[in-house]
Order: sequence, then C-alpha cells, then structure tokens
Amino acid sequence: MENLRVVLVATRNPLNMGAVARAMSNFGATRLRVVNPYEKAFREARSAVGAAAVLREAEECASVEEAVADCGLVVGTTAIGNREIKHPLRSLDKAGPVIRKRLARERVAILFGSEKKGLSNEDLSYCHWLVHIPTRGEHQSMNLGQAAAVCFYELGRGTRSVEEGVNRGAASMETVERITKSLLACLVKSGYVAARSEELAEEKLRRMVRRFSLDEADAEVFLGMVRKVEKELKVRR
Amino acid sequence: MENLRVVLVATRNPLNMGAVARAMSNFGATRLRVVNPYEKAFREARSAVGAAAVLREAEECASVEEAVADCGLVVGTTAIGNREIKHPLRSLDKAGPVIRKRLARERVAILFGSEKKGLSNEDLSYCHWLVHIPTRGEHQSMNLGQAAAVCFYELGRGTRSVEEGVNRGAASMETVERITKSLLACLVKSGYVAARSEELAEEKLRRMVRRFSLDEADAEVFLGMVRKVEKELKVRR
Repeated sequence: MENLRVVLVATRNPLNMGAVARAMSNFGATRLRVVNPYEKAFREARSAVGAAAVLREAEECASVEEAVADCGLVVGTTAIGNREIKHPLRSLDKAGPVIRKRLARERVAILFGSEKKGLSNEDLSYCHWLVHIPTRGEHQSMNLGQAAAVCFYELGRGTRSVEEGVNRGAASMETVERITKSLLACLVKSGYVAARSEELAEEKLRRMVRRFSLDEADAEVFLGMVRKVEKELKVRR
Repeated sequence: MENLRVVLVATRNPLNMGAVARAMSNFGATRLRVVNPYEKAFREARSAVGAAAVLREAEECASVEEAVADCGLVVGTTAIGNREIKHPLRSLDKAGPVIRKRLARERVAILFGSEKKGLSNEDLSYCHWLVHIPTRGEHQSMNLGQAAAVCFYELGRGTRSVEEGVNRGAASMETVERITKSLLACLVKSGYVAARSEELAEEKLRRMVRRFSLDEADAEVFLGMVRKVEKELKVRR
C-alpha cells in the first residue's frame, strides 16, 4: 500500500475527507493528494480534532495532471450512473489483482471524484482505465467514505489474512463413542428410551453425536458433563 | 444477499445507522434488525430525509437471541483490539466464501456492535464464529458505516463482476508494420534519423511500436495520424 496515491478531486464535504483518511489509515495507505478541494472543507477536515495524520500530511495539487505525474498507473473510480463510459472498465474484484500487481513495483494513483458529480470527463482522460464497485443497478451511488474503504480493503486483500481456531483438531472416535455410550445410558435411565428399543436408539444416537463434529477440547468437556449426569441418575434410582 | 440479516446491537449514532442502511441498499441486502438501539438515535435515523427503505423497514428486536433466532449461521464482527478472542476467527477475505456458501441455502446473521465497545461477550456468545476486517495493527478500529460497507462488498463478491473493453482485439501485425514504416519515413524526413543510420533506427522503432500494444481501433487512428504527417512532410521538402 506504500505505493498507493489516493487522489480526491473537488471533494466538498470535510466529513468525507476525514472518512477517506481514516479508511486509508485502517488499511495502511498514507499518501493523500487533493485537487481543487473546497478550501473551507479542506481546512476544516484538516484541523478537526483527531484528524488522521494522513489528512494533516495531505498534499494539495493544482491539477489532476500534477497529482498523478509520478505514477505508473492511474485508475479512476466511477459509479457509472447515466454516464457513457469511454474507458476500459473493471469491477473492483477484477481490478484488485491487476492493481496489486502494479503496486508491487510502481506507484499507482486511484482517483475519487466529487460527491455530487464524480470525476469529470477531463479528470477521467488522465486515467488508464476505470474501476466500479459492483453495486445494485437501482442504487449504484455509494457514499464517498464507504466507497474508499471498500477500495482500500480490496487493494490490501490477502496481505493480513488470518484464520484462527477454525480447524481445531477433531475429537477421537474413542471419545465420541464414550460420549455416545454414556448419553445412551442417561436416556435409558431417565426413561427417554425404553429398554426394549435400546438398540435402535443407540444407532440413531451414534449418528447424531457424530454429526455434532465435536473438536477435541469440546468432546472432553461434553463427555465430563454426560458422565456426571449418568452418575447422578444411577444414585437416584 | 436476500438471506442476509444485518443486526446492529446498541448502535448510538443515527448517522452510522443511516450509513449501514445505505451500504445495505448499495449491495442488495434489505433486512436490518436493531437490538437495544439508543431510541432517540433510531427514531432520528429512521425519520431522516432520504432514509433508505431498509431503515424504515428495520425490525426492532428485544435481544440478540431474538434477532438471530431464525438464522442458521450467526457471525459476529470484531476489530479485535485488546479483546481476548474465545471464538474461531476468520479475516473477512477468508470468511467471504464460507458465508456466501451458507447464504445460498439459509439465513445468515451478521452482527455489528456499538461504536465505542463493539459486541459484548454476551452478544458474541450467540455467534458461531467471528469475522475481522484485516486492518493495520496500529489502527484496527473502523468506522461502523465503512466496516459494514466492506463486509457487504465481500459478501456480494463476484455476483456483479464486469470487465468491459479491457481486452480489445489487438491490432494486426500488418497495421503495426505500416505504422512503423510510416513513422520511420517521418523521422527520416524530419531529420530526426540520419539516412545512414536508418537501418538501426528501424529496428529500434519496430520494437518500440510493438511495445505500445495497440488495439485494433487505436492502431487505425494512429496510422491515419502518422500518414497525414508523412504526407505533409513530403509536400514541404
């Protein structure tokens, strides 16, 4: 993400600037450039309490041309809407791998337009191609801060993946069978299962306990619970 | 996305509720449930001008238990922070395929906690597992509306993918060679290339023109440009 240059063109709302900066910080992008911002909004966003470092260090550029001059790839964002698209267009999920590959070796600019009108055709003419977040046709236009967060998430995809405790070791069949036996004893003793239908019940129970897909640790705990109940039922009878 | 139930627990800020609802609408999720919202915030969000239909039709639930009762899978979101994680945990990119598979056949609830504290341990105890948006360790906590947008984007991943005009047909080598020849003629006539080094220049130029990776339409236009310049140079000499 070090090579990403985020370019905001003609943004109006200071809250949106703050939101873009926050999402950048969340996903490890640090270089923000603003072109033709509404001066008051930019000052306000910058001086807000708790403004992200990203925003304080934002560079102000006189034009899109200047903002993308040192980049090897320039990608514009569009909600499409009624606009006639004259550029190659990729949805974000298709664009992600392409941009990530380029980020690995050179600077890439991603442009976001104003809240009302998006990027102008002139702004777009500086772009190699366009990216679109695949939203519903009936409600395509996203909030700027949310759109930016979605883009940065996709561009950082895979760099910080985790999976923890998802595949805990399965319980041994020995333990599972001990649970089955003890549970059956409880059911017989409690009268849930009649002694004469015990065999059929045992089969059903065996299948059911296996469907629980118990992991090792849970199986030991569960066995302890069932055993305790079995013991208690023995005493009472 | 029809099977997705979005559950907001103890949300404080009406703007955040509105932002979550907007992102839901962008990505085609329609069923919002709110548990223990700050009443005033909920009323305010609901009655805001332009409030999404999603928000107007939100169901208010008395508890997390009630909000997830009709779902087959319950996933909690967490920024991790200083929290000790007692659940299996997946980053969003790993969770996406798992949740999408479940959404194809049953209702799935995704829970978002309050802006300040996230989901409580009690809220989390209703979850099968947790999902985390892979943000930077130094700045993990995302804005609620942005986090929700990122989640919905991931859950809808692939359903609306497009690639347009990305792989336009490449120019035929015949056209590319005509461009090369005409360009060389221009360079010789303009004096950029001396007649005696023409052979070497031609080779270099041939390689360069091929690196342009011209598509069919652009190649025709470019050939027309070069031809016109070549003709003009002929007249002037």
